[in-house]
Order: sequence, then structure tokens, then C-alpha cells
Amino acid sequence: MKGFIAGDWGTSNLRLFLCRDGRVTDRVSGPGIAAVPGAAEATLLDLIAPWRAAHGTLPIFLSGMIGSSIGWVEAPYIQCPAGPSALRDGMRRLAAGGHEVAIASGLACTNPLGAPDVMRGEETQILGALATHPDLGRGRQILCLPGTHSKWALLNDGRVEHFQTAMTGELFATLHGHSILGRGTEGLLPDDGPAFQTGLARGLEEHGTTLPHLLFEARSRQLRDGLGPQWALSFLSGLLVGQDCVGTRARYRPAPGQPITIIAAPVLGRLYESALSRLGITCRLLSGDRQSLAGLFALAGHELKDPMT
Amino acid sequence: MKGFIAGDWGTSNLRLFLCRDGRVTDRVSGPGIAAVPGAAEATLLDLIAPWRAAHGTLPIFLSGMIGSSIGWVEAPYIQCPAGPSALRDGMRRLAAGGHEVAIASGLACTNPLGAPDVMRGEETQILGALATHPDLGRGRQILCLPGTHSKWALLNDGRVEHFQTAMTGELFATLHGHSILGRGTEGLLPDDGPAFQTGLARGLEEHGTTLPHLLFEARSRQLRDGLGPQWALSFLSGLLVGQDCVGTRARYRPAPGQPITIIAAPVLGRLYESALSRLGITCRLLSGDRQSLAGLFALAGHELKDPMT
Repeated sequence: MKGFIAGDWGTSNLRLFLCRDGRVTDRVSGPGIAAVPGAAEATLLDLIAPWRAAHGTLPIFLSGMIGSSIGWVEAPYIQCPAGPSALRDGMRRLAAGGHEVAIASGLACTNPLGAPDVMRGEETQILGALATHPDLGRGRQILCLPGTHSKWALLNDGRVEHFQTAMTGELFATLHGHSILGRGTEGLLPDDGPAFQTGLARGLEEHGTTLPHLLFEARSRQLRDGLGPQWALSFLSGLLVGQDCVGTRARYRPAPGQPITIIAAPVLGRLYESALSRLGITCRLLSGDRQSLAGLFALAGHELKDPMT
Repeated sequence: MKGFIAGDWGTSNLRLFLCRDGRVTDRVSGPGIAAVPGAAEATLLDLIAPWRAAHGTLPIFLSGMIGSSIGWVEAPYIQCPAGPSALRDGMRRLAAGGHEVAIASGLACTNPLGAPDVMRGEETQILGALATHPDLGRGRQILCLPGTHSKWALLNDGRVEHFQTAMTGELFATLHGHSILGRGTEGLLPDDGPAFQTGLARGLEEHGTTLPHLLFEARSRQLRDGLGPQWALSFLSGLLVGQDCVGTRARYRPAPGQPITIIAAPVLGRLYESALSRLGITCRLLSGDRQSLAGLFALAGHELKDPMT
């Protein structure tokens, strides 16, 4: 079987995989597209030169922000509902250095709030999850892909019906780095201890009030209760994760007993599991890296057999 | 009648007033306390030297962050409920260059969300509003003091029962300056046109979702609907003002027909009036500058007769 090259190329990172017989046989990392504006093709060809020398001009499948307006070429958004075949058919194809290159399209929808919404990169993780967990292709399924811009997606018989973005991670980073709530937190990381749980409880309460009001507790408890920056940062993390989850539940209300599938790095995934479990929702955690790779295999028309090699 | 010196000394600005016979007879501006750490006394005495030369060592009444831990001396928070007499009695008194100096205390409470809350500076505006509008001293009254940290206060027979802070202004500035929502908005200011109104409507909707989700529309409409940074900035402004107001209503639900008194700069006050009127709430707008000055007069035991001089 002829192999292929798969790449997850985001704003900050590039991970390239040499793939053959359902397995990754080699890998290399490179710069995110933001670091190489206008030089995506040269960067890619340089990184894969050893593989080209050994294996010839294998086809290349790329996913992520590489297909955005700040990427290499723009792979337009596909309008939901859309499933695996639409994602495969919708790839933007070009040639580079003798290689056939296919760049994944993102997804667009009108989200349950009535606003336009977009994702780029997460659709490949969803494709991977569908390939590795066939039960996700049956009936109504809710997926959670937390991150800088968290995506919550509703699947119906294996197609993405619609999805909704929450700017949870970016909101955390912005408040951490540039607001009074971040004062004294330079170099600190939030933890999932009691402060996180307190923030989570606040964020999940059905109190009818809103985040601008809830945020100030991270400051006032430092002034009045003698708590410190580490407490405030973890409280803020819990508050935002809680607000993300409770805000989603209002639109993607799972049926009693229906689990939500979280696709994320394990540490982040467990924070969301902690939040959703407080709402009585059980979760299945899938590795974001593994589903990205499985999705690239699916785009290439192959099955990932041993993703951990 | 012997005169006095009144000062509104915040983090970024100092405004000093020479007062006599219920009027301001001279005024001078100076640096906020953040710009003169450890040098508050010298800064003050230098600025008022001409007044001392002409009028002797008049008593000085100061309000604002000058009484905080980053100010001159700390004037502790007074626990609510608290009214005008508690604010007058609670001033921190000291001597400087032969002047008697009195620094206003802030207020503290457990807010309607169950969290500790604090204000410093706004209590003087409330005191001024009570002095200039005696009807505010009767029965249940709701005040809105929007800003970097908006304060909403519930008054009962002229005393502040409790209040609640929303970080609306800081959230706006942080997202404007440091998030993807601010991309391309450098040098722009939000306006109160259709984009603001659209954001306001979104922020006020009873959709059960949360701000992390609502924020992304400011980005997605640029990507999908061809709207620009000016639109996004004004939408964001409306969204946050709306979320501030709807989040307050959940806790300070006014009786039908009961107005809310807004104390603010006129431009900002009208944005909040626009939001509250969509909720069917009528507003009275009072000038923040004028109420600050009236409050300093009240702290000095005088009545402001002609605040516009």
C-alpha cells in the first residue's frame, strides 16, 4: 500500500506524520502558520524533504488553520449539516513540489443562538471520532471540544447538524494576562482544587445573572477574604468552564442519561467532565491528538489502526 | 463662611476644587494616585499651594482610590447597610502641612450573589445623589453607576442596603485591546448605532446561554457576513452593556413603573438608559461629575448650591 503524509497545521504548531499501512511510521514538528506567513509551501517541502527522498511524492492531507485566510490557500467553509463524505469531497486540492495536496475545509452553520458560526480543525477531530467510535454515527450525539474557542456540536446520524462556539479559553487567557483579575498571577497556572470547584459551582448556578457580575468575586475575595492570586486564577478557570457548560446546556440539552463526548487533551477534558458531572451528565473522554490523527486518516481514505505509534 | 478643599482622587486622575459658600470658586487637576506612588501628600500640597497662600490651611476632603491600599492611607470599608451619617463618621482623618484631611471610606457588603463586594468612590456619588435628590432617600431605590467596574446599589430609606459589581467596562477594554475581537479596532471607538443595538438585543435576550458563547458572534459576523471591526466593537459594547443590565435585573428586579437612577457621564448613561428601556424600565440620568462634587460637599457638611460653576 502506498503511504501518505498527514499534517495538523494550526496557528501555533505544525505536526506532520508519515503514514503507511494504517500506522504512523515517522513524525516531525514545525512552525505554526502565523510564524511563516506566505511561506507555507516552502516550509512544508523543506520539512518533508527526507520523506520525499525515501518514498517519493506521497499525497499530503492537511487540516487546521492552514486552510484559513491566514493560511496557505483558503479552503471554504462547508455549510452544515455536513458529514464525512461532505468533508472528504470539500477538500481544497492543489499541487506542490510534485505532491498532490488536499487541505480540509472548515464547517459553517447558523448556531442555536441564531448567529453564524464557524470551526476549522475541530471538524477533522469529529471525523476522527466518527471513524474510531462508530456508535457516534448513530442518532443524536453531543460533542464538546473545549479550547481557546470551545466548540459544542450536535450530531445526527453521523452528520454535524450545527455547533456553537464559546470563547472560554481566550477569555481566560485575556483576563489572566490583561485584567485586574490577573494581578499577581504571572507565571501561575490554574489548578483543579477547591478554588476551581468553587468557581465551577458559581458558574453553574442557575442564578439568572451574568458573567460580568460573576467575575468580580475573583477580585473581591482577595480584598475581603485574604485569598491570593493562585486562588483567584483557579476560581476564574472554574467560573469560565462552568459558564461554558451551563450556557451550552441551555441549547444542547441532553436527554436523561445521554452522555456527552469530550474531545480534548486529557487535563482539559477532565475539567469539563468535572463541570458536566455536576449537571448530572456523564462523559466519555477522547484524546484530541488521537482524533485529529484519525480524522486525517479518514480524509486520506484510510483507517488508523495503531494511533499510538 | 470658611471654605474647604474637595478632591476626587482616583487611580488615573485627580480633580481638586476650592469651595466656598456652596460653590466651586477654583479648580485644578493633577495625577492619579497610580502615577505618584508614595507621594500623595507632596503632590497634594504642591497643587494647593496657591490656595494655601491665599486662604490659609483650609480643611481637605478627599474621595476615591486615594483611600485604598494603593492610595495615601487606607480608609477601611464600611459594612452595609450604611447611609450618609456612617459615611461621614467613617472618614479617615489625618493632618498634612497644617491642613486637616479627611479621606472617605468605601463600602463593603455581601452582594445579592452571596459574594463579598466593595466600592470606593461611588459611595460619594451616592451620597451626592441623596443630597441633591431627596426623593432618593425615601423607600426602595435602585441606582446604577456604570463604568470600568459598574456598581448597582439598592437603597432603602437613604441607606445602601447592598450593591453588586459588574466588570463590564474592564471586560470591554480587555477584549478590545487583547483578544481576537479587537483585531483591527485599534484607534476605533464603539458607537451607539445599529451594531450597538444588535449587541444590546443579544445581551438582553432571555436565552439561558452565557457570555462566552455570545461573544463569538462579534467574530463570526466578520468572517461570514462581511461586517468590519467598527461593527464588531459596537456590537461588543452593546452585548456587554446588555449582559450587565439583564444580569442585574435578575437580582434587583424593580417594581413595575419604578425608575432606576443612573449616575454616569452622559454618553455612558444614555447607553445604559437605552438598555434598560428595552427591559421596560424608565431611567433618571444624573451626572457622575456633579454627584461626586455634591458628595464631597456632603462629606464636608455643606450643601452644593451651584455645581456647574
